[in-house]
Amino acid sequence: MKARVFVSLKSTVLDPQGQTVRSALAGLGYHDIADVRQGKFFDVTLAEGTPREQARRDIETIAHEVLANPVIEEYRVEFLD
Amino acid sequence: MKARVFVSLKSTVLDPQGQTVRSALAGLGYHDIADVRQGKFFDVTLAEGTPREQARRDIETIAHEVLANPVIEEYRVEFLD
Repeated sequence: MKARVFVSLKSTVLDPQGQTVRSALAGLGYHDIADVRQGKFFDVTLAEGTPREQARRDIETIAHEVLANPVIEEYRVEFLD
Repeated sequence: MKARVFVSLKSTVLDPQGQTVRSALAGLGYHDIADVRQGKFFDVTLAEGTPREQARRDIETIAHEVLANPVIEEYRVEFLD
């Protein structure tokens, strides 16, 4: 079983990395780029034979407690199979 | 118009960040996690009025030349509207 956890800064939080990419792109002549925000994702593979329900619970807990910082970040979990 | 560019290490390339997350999770008791690989994504917003065709071309070029390092990374572009 595989899951993908997307982690991004909350929309109210400044994203300096994204702003740097945006201004670099403007410097390269891409003036049609209005905004860039960067995030990260984690492709998590669970051991074979993990019960589906437990896997879902674990991934949710891991996303909330380990992969994302809920103070400034939000996350979304997608189960791939 | 919005696009999301996913960038991840090629599957043949070692991912030390992902491995660190994986071993941290094992240390926390999550032994059902077999593998973790980390990637990043960029949410790109294009200026209003950008012709659709030009926007698509620009995003493809930006993904290939700026956001990803084609030697070790692969990318995928998703247009959100």
